[in-house]
Amino acid sequence: MSDTNRVFLLAERPDGRPDEDTFELAERDLPTPGPGEALVRTLYLSVDPYMRGRMDARESYADPWGVGDPMEAAVVGEVVESNGAGLEAGTVVTGELEWADYATAPGTELYPIDPELAPISTALGVLGMPGRTAYFGTKEIAQPTAGDTFVVSGAAGAVGSVAGQIAGLQGADVVGFAGSDEKVQFLEDELGFDAGINYKTTDDYGAALDEAAPGGVDAYFDNVGGPITDAVFTRLNVDARVAVCGQISQYNATELPTGPRKLATLVETRATVEGFLVGDYQPRFEAATRQLGEWVQRGQVQYRETVTEGLENAPDAFLGLFEGENIGKQLVKVAERDVRSRGL
Amino acid sequence: MSDTNRVFLLAERPDGRPDEDTFELAERDLPTPGPGEALVRTLYLSVDPYMRGRMDARESYADPWGVGDPMEAAVVGEVVESNGAGLEAGTVVTGELEWADYATAPGTELYPIDPELAPISTALGVLGMPGRTAYFGTKEIAQPTAGDTFVVSGAAGAVGSVAGQIAGLQGADVVGFAGSDEKVQFLEDELGFDAGINYKTTDDYGAALDEAAPGGVDAYFDNVGGPITDAVFTRLNVDARVAVCGQISQYNATELPTGPRKLATLVETRATVEGFLVGDYQPRFEAATRQLGEWVQRGQVQYRETVTEGLENAPDAFLGLFEGENIGKQLVKVAERDVRSRGL
Repeated sequence: MSDTNRVFLLAERPDGRPDEDTFELAERDLPTPGPGEALVRTLYLSVDPYMRGRMDARESYADPWGVGDPMEAAVVGEVVESNGAGLEAGTVVTGELEWADYATAPGTELYPIDPELAPISTALGVLGMPGRTAYFGTKEIAQPTAGDTFVVSGAAGAVGSVAGQIAGLQGADVVGFAGSDEKVQFLEDELGFDAGINYKTTDDYGAALDEAAPGGVDAYFDNVGGPITDAVFTRLNVDARVAVCGQISQYNATELPTGPRKLATLVETRATVEGFLVGDYQPRFEAATRQLGEWVQRGQVQYRETVTEGLENAPDAFLGLFEGENIGKQLVKVAERDVRSRGL
Repeated sequence: MSDTNRVFLLAERPDGRPDEDTFELAERDLPTPGPGEALVRTLYLSVDPYMRGRMDARESYADPWGVGDPMEAAVVGEVVESNGAGLEAGTVVTGELEWADYATAPGTELYPIDPELAPISTALGVLGMPGRTAYFGTKEIAQPTAGDTFVVSGAAGAVGSVAGQIAGLQGADVVGFAGSDEKVQFLEDELGFDAGINYKTTDDYGAALDEAAPGGVDAYFDNVGGPITDAVFTRLNVDARVAVCGQISQYNATELPTGPRKLATLVETRATVEGFLVGDYQPRFEAATRQLGEWVQRGQVQYRETVTEGLENAPDAFLGLFEGENIGKQLVKVAERDVRSRGL
């Protein structure tokens, strides 16, 4: 094992779209776990759109990252050394760590995962935060039922791909917006969506929706905002529900000269638009993960991962989220699991 | 009584803002009530922002008016002649009639009002559809409670002025946006609002809100949309509720190039934005009107009316709504009550 550690720091706050100046890959000494802590070697690192918000100085539900500080991420890693953390070396855990090869954390904040149950990377995707976000946003906010038409944007992403399948399991007709023919094929052929719309090759989202969902939209799971959401808003049915999960098309905007428009459609439809944060459902995480695990094991929920190799490529993986380069969960593979490290 | 009738017809569908070409004042024969119908002389005519929608061809919750057809309106009038309608001549009634001096309607669609209880014009305002809209939108959708900050746009209008007072009765701090210093004074001095903001003399709505509502916004009753709503959206508190009642700033727009923006704020706040139509609460109208009547009688809810004289001026009264020329309910006074007409 190397005695140095590579850590990505937030070099400067981006003005609009992050770029290479946003990130600094620093060499640091290998950290030493304090009492009750463990040293964890990163195996998989999760990059997620919400991280864009943490790059800004503005206070929000997740604290801003400090300039010059390590950037945080959900990680699946392997315990290398425990200093009374109650975890054996070699245990695979997940937790909020850093964009780094190694990090330390209190044992109480590291959650062992069972590598026999599912591939360990799923703890960052379908069985992790994105899966649970899809679960609660669909079941509690968008609430599709049999016969409903459910539309999801960012449909081929980590959250959208699961949300659409859960809606399908409730008996809804499912339409997804995604950004390539390959993704649309993935939605229709692998995930069982009723229709996919490639928004990058479609001029008129409204017309495409009218074709795919001629009866209008009863439930909408919004990951992207912008013109796709405009089109859906004007096609909401009476008592429709909109779950606002993300607005990735807006995160890099330096200016939003206009605000909510087309809200008049909500009056006509008595529709509800509701934001949600998966963290509010913490007491029900275990039950949700168990349900998702059962669906995955039975093949009722499929998942896809896009894996970028190497910690040094984490910024590219992150930036690719805003270009829609991933299908399913975007991960960074930092290291292979190495059982020999147990003896360290 | 004249044996002719003046009736406003929809001359053409407006493209954007209605103007004089939109309306045609036609001379017609005095209509004759059919079996079960009554002839009603218009005393007060209500002009309301939602009528703009009925001028378009698009189907919505209220049917489009046909080109060349009489325009409809809520009216307070006097029964002139009953053809088995079960109503005595001279009875003051309210109903959905026409922009006209006289109209006929089935007795079952005419509702007697008690002139002793409150001025008869209130059946079109605080004790009519606008009052009930304020009542249900505030109590059921925006749900202000003690200690909440409640913001209302179009605050000096027929609906907003009642909504803000109902919120105050629930113990909320009430902030209203209105379009003149006179209106702001009306809100603060007569209606007991905690603060009014004159949006026509304020450059920065956000800064004005930060001053008037430093703790953020818990409930928002939106009558206008546009930049005021933008400012409120970015100041919503966790679990805030937005009742979308109207979007008058948008009704004449020929193009809305961008749609919902700033919805990311809903994720942070887990806020709910919900459209509503007062008609959905029909079974509870009687109870709502009774409650409003009690409040008015006890002086707990004040109301103001802006009365335009003469049927021929109804289009100006309607167009003035989009300029914010009214304080409180905009009415058109078409005729004096004439008890002598009973004998006709």
